[in-house]
Amino acid sequence: MTNTLTSSGVRARPVAPGGTRRGLGIGELLLDGGFWGRLQETNAHATLQHCLDWMERLGWLANFDRVSDGTAGTSGVPRPGWQFSDSEVYKLLEAMAWELGRTGDPAVGALWDELVDRVAAAQDDDGYLNTCYGHGGQPARWSDLSAGHELYCTGHLLQAAVARWRTHGEDRLVEVARRAADQVCREFGPDGRPGICGHPEIEVGLAELGRALDEPRYTAQARLFVERRGHGTLAPIALLSPAYFQDDVPVREADVWRGHAVRALYLAAGAVDVAVDTGDDELRAAVERQWTRSVERRTYLTGGMGSRHQDEGFGDDWELPPDRAYCETCAGIASVMVSWRLLLASDDVRYADLVERTLYNVVATSPRTDGRAFFYANPLQQREQGAPMQPDAVNPRAEGGARAPWFDVSCCPTNVARTLASWHTYAAFVDDADGDAAGTTTVTLAQYASGDVRVAVGEGELALRVDTTYPASGTVRVTVLEAPDRPVTLRLRVPAWADGATLATSSGPLPGADAGVPRAVAPGWAEASGALAVGDVVVLELPVAPRLTWPDPRVDAARGTVAVERGPLVLCLESVDLPAGVALDEVRIDVAAGVRPHADGALVRARRLSLPDDGTGAPPFTSGPSRPQPDGATADGFDVPLVPYHRWAERGPSTMRVFVPEGDPQ
Amino acid sequence: MTNTLTSSGVRARPVAPGGTRRGLGIGELLLDGGFWGRLQETNAHATLQHCLDWMERLGWLANFDRVSDGTAGTSGVPRPGWQFSDSEVYKLLEAMAWELGRTGDPAVGALWDELVDRVAAAQDDDGYLNTCYGHGGQPARWSDLSAGHELYCTGHLLQAAVARWRTHGEDRLVEVARRAADQVCREFGPDGRPGICGHPEIEVGLAELGRALDEPRYTAQARLFVERRGHGTLAPIALLSPAYFQDDVPVREADVWRGHAVRALYLAAGAVDVAVDTGDDELRAAVERQWTRSVERRTYLTGGMGSRHQDEGFGDDWELPPDRAYCETCAGIASVMVSWRLLLASDDVRYADLVERTLYNVVATSPRTDGRAFFYANPLQQREQGAPMQPDAVNPRAEGGARAPWFDVSCCPTNVARTLASWHTYAAFVDDADGDAAGTTTVTLAQYASGDVRVAVGEGELALRVDTTYPASGTVRVTVLEAPDRPVTLRLRVPAWADGATLATSSGPLPGADAGVPRAVAPGWAEASGALAVGDVVVLELPVAPRLTWPDPRVDAARGTVAVERGPLVLCLESVDLPAGVALDEVRIDVAAGVRPHADGALVRARRLSLPDDGTGAPPFTSGPSRPQPDGATADGFDVPLVPYHRWAERGPSTMRVFVPEGDPQ
Repeated sequence: MTNTLTSSGVRARPVAPGGTRRGLGIGELLLDGGFWGRLQETNAHATLQHCLDWMERLGWLANFDRVSDGTAGTSGVPRPGWQFSDSEVYKLLEAMAWELGRTGDPAVGALWDELVDRVAAAQDDDGYLNTCYGHGGQPARWSDLSAGHELYCTGHLLQAAVARWRTHGEDRLVEVARRAADQVCREFGPDGRPGICGHPEIEVGLAELGRALDEPRYTAQARLFVERRGHGTLAPIALLSPAYFQDDVPVREADVWRGHAVRALYLAAGAVDVAVDTGDDELRAAVERQWTRSVERRTYLTGGMGSRHQDEGFGDDWELPPDRAYCETCAGIASVMVSWRLLLASDDVRYADLVERTLYNVVATSPRTDGRAFFYANPLQQREQGAPMQPDAVNPRAEGGARAPWFDVSCCPTNVARTLASWHTYAAFVDDADGDAAGTTTVTLAQYASGDVRVAVGEGELALRVDTTYPASGTVRVTVLEAPDRPVTLRLRVPAWADGATLATSSGPLPGADAGVPRAVAPGWAEASGALAVGDVVVLELPVAPRLTWPDPRVDAARGTVAVERGPLVLCLESVDLPAGVALDEVRIDVAAGVRPHADGALVRARRLSLPDDGTGAPPFTSGPSRPQPDGATADGFDVPLVPYHRWAERGPSTMRVFVPEGDPQ
Repeated sequence: MTNTLTSSGVRARPVAPGGTRRGLGIGELLLDGGFWGRLQETNAHATLQHCLDWMERLGWLANFDRVSDGTAGTSGVPRPGWQFSDSEVYKLLEAMAWELGRTGDPAVGALWDELVDRVAAAQDDDGYLNTCYGHGGQPARWSDLSAGHELYCTGHLLQAAVARWRTHGEDRLVEVARRAADQVCREFGPDGRPGICGHPEIEVGLAELGRALDEPRYTAQARLFVERRGHGTLAPIALLSPAYFQDDVPVREADVWRGHAVRALYLAAGAVDVAVDTGDDELRAAVERQWTRSVERRTYLTGGMGSRHQDEGFGDDWELPPDRAYCETCAGIASVMVSWRLLLASDDVRYADLVERTLYNVVATSPRTDGRAFFYANPLQQREQGAPMQPDAVNPRAEGGARAPWFDVSCCPTNVARTLASWHTYAAFVDDADGDAAGTTTVTLAQYASGDVRVAVGEGELALRVDTTYPASGTVRVTVLEAPDRPVTLRLRVPAWADGATLATSSGPLPGADAGVPRAVAPGWAEASGALAVGDVVVLELPVAPRLTWPDPRVDAARGTVAVERGPLVLCLESVDLPAGVALDEVRIDVAAGVRPHADGALVRARRLSLPDDGTGAPPFTSGPSRPQPDGATADGFDVPLVPYHRWAERGPSTMRVFVPEGDPQ
């Protein structure tokens, strides 16, 4: 495994056997506007400061100061924040590191320096760093592995340091992380405490740090944590079962994700890193097997994961209630982390498809347009209009129907921030499989956004200009601005939903094919091989007309309904778009009338539910909501618009649904 | 309000304005076998001792001894059990009181005496009685009103004492309860602490005790607790909202039940008692309004209440997932308590209908046939086969799929015990509306079971013999064994589902009607008026052929499905009854083929789901469980039996569903 120093002088992340496939490094993609470019700008100019302000206001930053000045655990005043609040600071640092690498903005740099100083000052002499344990009258270190989140926080610290290392190189935070990781290795190594953390994250943190710093000890420690899990050693938390923190079945034996979704997915991400970097094909195959069944049976149309509020967890197979979908924003982010790793490890396009689905419909759904309020849960149906969030208050975490500026458990805002700031990682990947000299390099565009891609190939450089308004349109135009002196294969992803896609290249991609003539490309990787020359143009046309999608017939909670998608976007019906006097739960889609494009969404024909009896003037009603006859719909139709799910609830309080019942007239 | 001394020398419960309508007293109904008689016998001979043994084994009884011997809170050993474990002891005492009144069994009497001694010895000098607070190093009394459950426990103590008083009269436990109630009135009276308990129950306990002992102070204190609620005074518990413990909206202003279901319903029961005994029609109307909307939109076909595991709570309107239905056994019992009170307060038959539905499909579902294991949650669908319960272990409370001998939070077993032991209460009621001398008395049979009813009427007595195998058959035969010397109106309930019921009487109930000729009777009260004479026979025929029931079209989670009911029983499809190789989620009911009686359930024609694509060999599967085409069913049909829901999971681990998808052949 080697770290690749990119053309912009920073280190990209290789994740594949032998380290041949890697995501883009920080300078290798520059977005200019478009869907993700705008989100990234808002993140940079609003969300980072927003998160910093809230954590200062709530005292989560001052917790570090109280450790460094020796007053932690001695003042008699309860420490503000949950036991895992340090992790929010680290996720914000990670976001800042990516952002600083992207723009070098000195304002962000000043914030970075100050924040790193405060964090570093709180590190104990032996490398331990946590503001909740081990100082003054605080509980002892490692006294509550099930719920204490100490290793979880450390894992996020390590990920932040890796972001800094990959965008900058050696740094004070990298040194802090190294000392913290060393302390963990001493404490929990083969001869140390045999414990694991109730919330996985240390695994992925250690594995990433080990890869970045070429330090196999960290990878080995990550592996140890992965292998120790699943043997029921964690002390139970209240009424939760060992599956809650994946301590029920060893990772390499499990067939499906279960329990708390974020935990399950962070663990899976760490397991893939360990598997790839130690050549453990069995472990990698185990995570791929879990991915397949979980995506087939326990994942929402949006890519959202987590069917239950109860334990923020996965449900049983086919248990996917739209209304009580938890689909935590962080679980969506963690799912992207896992799928991206499996993509680089396997080159299998289906992982990139799920990354896209999840980015557009979970990650992009969370932040409000202004970047200063967030969804924590992302249900696919809102039954009752939520009260507007108080714009300046800490909100309970799972409240639905309106985005909130901050949460009591506020893991999502900083997680969104670090993901948007590192969006380049997911956009494309480079495979130097055949070596550095005369071999072929493959550059694959996995996600589409307007901008410039610039990748070192051999001694030269491949520079591409990508022009697209995707997902508003399905046209992606790639122009070669600079070409290296050796063959490069350019691949573009054709999503599974893109039936009827075409690819045209100016230089004739196939023997005998006419340059510029579109050819049909099936879902998967569409290749434009050959010696790319400056001025070559590749045009991918993806059909983004709205389409109907039916739930699998085993998904009981969505039976008899249909959803509408448009390109990668899941659409939804919001009550604010209904004709006056029509309630959302009375709307039935007239499927036979089809679906038409409309603004950035779609238009469908609907009918109103005909209720055989409204419960008034009827016989005594004592059997709950049930009827002696099935229902139908009225004959009179009307048009209703569907809008992108990721922007719902931005036009005031509303009710909403993604899956809308079908209805034939009576 | 007067207490009625029944023919058997005990006091029945009047619950109506002016106290004219009352349920049966302990000696007024003697069951002999049949559905409820068998359950009551098993309760007496297995469940009571089972509960006693578990509580002794876990140290919940010894908690009382440690208070009386002065070692509570001083030993350094944590007190066993949750902070509300005392309440289980009181519910068991209540069950014993009813059982002792029914049979006078000296073995139960000995257990009673011993248990009351231990409880009484733990009462503090000022009347306070709780084993978790206020002794030694224990937390101070009333230091945690939100979660401490002190008043909740006291409420159950008072209900136990009322049971004793109504079946026996003055007693040591009644004295203990009086002192405890007095202490509560001093502490929380108009001039005392303005607090309320996080878990309602003290309201109904005080109101019942006030009614039993003719002590208006207790009723006034219950009223004070009801009125104080809904003003957001309870300190929040973790992430739960004030609605969790109904502290969001005052009782008389609320439109619907919400939050923790058992809390909402115990509160409602207390509110009805207060409303009736203080002539507060507005308060009573508020609860009736809440009942109507909650039953119409937030209640399962089984009568079960509570759609969410998260807070053991009601969901939004129409949010009724069969698989994640919580439907706690205790919520079913609490619902019966509320409906029964509203029935006596209003004479409205719909309340009796819901009592029946809930008794047969929630309360009777909980205990295993041997009375030594119980369901805590009662979902209407079990997706994955639950692991068999360990026969001798404490189980987590919400585990589905198998009954457990005891739970960590074990409120349900003792609640079932007290309800079965007092089943007579719900069977019939007596209305002496027109006074005691020459007026008419109405005796109403609200629930049907084989046995003898014996009620004092004026100076005489009405004795009825009820013969029925209901609900196996729909024939209820009532023979007059003794008749008083003044007119009695006999009414029999015709359930809302009983379309086509008939009533025949040997003496000609209507002017000109032929004796013995059945006449059609509509759902509601069927009356057999006149001077009943010894030997008169009334025969009610209820149609109990299996019937199809469709969910209300607004219940998203059950769309496209149909249920089968038979008389008052909800049926279900259990995987153990399926042909080999057919999975439960592939079964589609062929509705056009109808439904036929079969054993104690029904037989339907089914088809197997035709899956357009099983996820193998298909294009990359990345959109969760969704399909580009809707589904159909195969053409080949087969028969499947449906069995009564209340007996599911008694033939080994299985999966199960009440609502089965409809399917037309492709």
